[in-house]
Amino acid sequence: MKQSIGVIDSGVGGLTVAQELMRQLPHERLIYLGDTKRCPYGSRSEEEVRAFTWEMVRFLLHKEIKLLVVACNTATAFTIDELKEQLDIPVIGVINPGARAAINASENKNIAVIGTEGTIKSKSYVKALQQIDANLDVYPLACPTLVPMVEQGIFSGDQAVEVAEYALEPLQPFHAFDTLILGCTHYPLIKDVIQHVVGDHVNIVSSSEETARETSALLDVMELLNTDVQHVIHEFYTTGDLKTFTEMAKKIFDENNSGRLNIHYEFARL
Amino acid sequence: MKQSIGVIDSGVGGLTVAQELMRQLPHERLIYLGDTKRCPYGSRSEEEVRAFTWEMVRFLLHKEIKLLVVACNTATAFTIDELKEQLDIPVIGVINPGARAAINASENKNIAVIGTEGTIKSKSYVKALQQIDANLDVYPLACPTLVPMVEQGIFSGDQAVEVAEYALEPLQPFHAFDTLILGCTHYPLIKDVIQHVVGDHVNIVSSSEETARETSALLDVMELLNTDVQHVIHEFYTTGDLKTFTEMAKKIFDENNSGRLNIHYEFARL
Repeated sequence: MKQSIGVIDSGVGGLTVAQELMRQLPHERLIYLGDTKRCPYGSRSEEEVRAFTWEMVRFLLHKEIKLLVVACNTATAFTIDELKEQLDIPVIGVINPGARAAINASENKNIAVIGTEGTIKSKSYVKALQQIDANLDVYPLACPTLVPMVEQGIFSGDQAVEVAEYALEPLQPFHAFDTLILGCTHYPLIKDVIQHVVGDHVNIVSSSEETARETSALLDVMELLNTDVQHVIHEFYTTGDLKTFTEMAKKIFDENNSGRLNIHYEFARL
Repeated sequence: MKQSIGVIDSGVGGLTVAQELMRQLPHERLIYLGDTKRCPYGSRSEEEVRAFTWEMVRFLLHKEIKLLVVACNTATAFTIDELKEQLDIPVIGVINPGARAAINASENKNIAVIGTEGTIKSKSYVKALQQIDANLDVYPLACPTLVPMVEQGIFSGDQAVEVAEYALEPLQPFHAFDTLILGCTHYPLIKDVIQHVVGDHVNIVSSSEETARETSALLDVMELLNTDVQHVIHEFYTTGDLKTFTEMAKKIFDENNSGRLNIHYEFARL
């Protein structure tokens, strides 16, 4: 029986989704692939993102996965429909779970969403939100400076606040919306900084957490949950430098007190 | 095409689920059936609850529903498996969504759950939680005095606090857990009272909100979302006194600022 959940991402952002999956589904085994060599995807063309995503998917299909999580908003925006159509396993992207959680959280129906240029230009969040409720007001904003900062390992401090303040400035006045979607899986790593900038009155929705929760629901409904309590060893692959990737993953899991995780790190040639 | 979401409940508690469904899915049409004549189900035998639930389900199947929400924890505890097995439409209960949201919310893995005698005795929440994470500590407590109070329309005030304090006393010390599941759809109506009693450090998870969110996710994944923006008229049926039921529903929707809802209320003979 196929037992693993496959997770693909353009790099390390998807580790926030992986972390939530491991926390919320401790009996499930993950196989993660981060395309760190070609990261970031955010400013790449649709064609490139689609080609790279399919390369990653093919790599994971050889590993016998039972469900695929596309843990990158840009890849979700450009490929989720064709992946759902062409794969015979369930596919979950990060956009719809984030949209649903935002609708659940918002009281005044004014929702802001930040993401990479690719995600925002694709209008995926606006479509996902307004398909469910046509009366929502959505404020989308591309924040191209945030991912490079996170990729450098800067998650807090004065410099982070300054970069975030400048990036979020076009969303002023911040009291116009009551909910902000972190439409990029890198952003949960600087959630505190973003909360500080927009103010405490804003509900911040992390598509990472919500995607893990919906994965849990879908595995349950489809009767694919791994119910054997067993010693789980996860496999994490990177297309880039193994040492940098491993260090970054450990830093992320550590800062979020993930406890002892049994992860085998390896280089992947696509 | 079947366009409505069917919702069944032992009485008025499920209105909190209906309210969230209408808020989170404004383009969907609901057909609600509350068995107020035979409410509450909480102290009834499993046999009775199963028989009554099937009568409600048959009533709704004649109305061409595309999905069934069992908005009553007691009915979910006793019938969800057989309903899922025997119906050819998707069936969602209130227990698993609440369990998943609690796992998402809890940091210390100590989760309390309150419900009716039937729900607590069935151990459904304990099973649902520990199936996902065997290392959770779960504190279940039956609170038989809360539903009768809510059914009398008492949602706040000194009397409500006193009743809740007495009912929740066995969960002391309240700092032993960081998350509390409201395992009965009546309880969201006294959420503020319960939060006041257990303290602000406790995350309170409402199975009503969470069930609406998972319904949204499931309709999306199964491509059953009603995407036509149209004038939606909901149908709400009661097996008991129509006037009392209508007044209670309006009071609940009103107190929660649900805005203008287009609902047709009617008596149902099962």
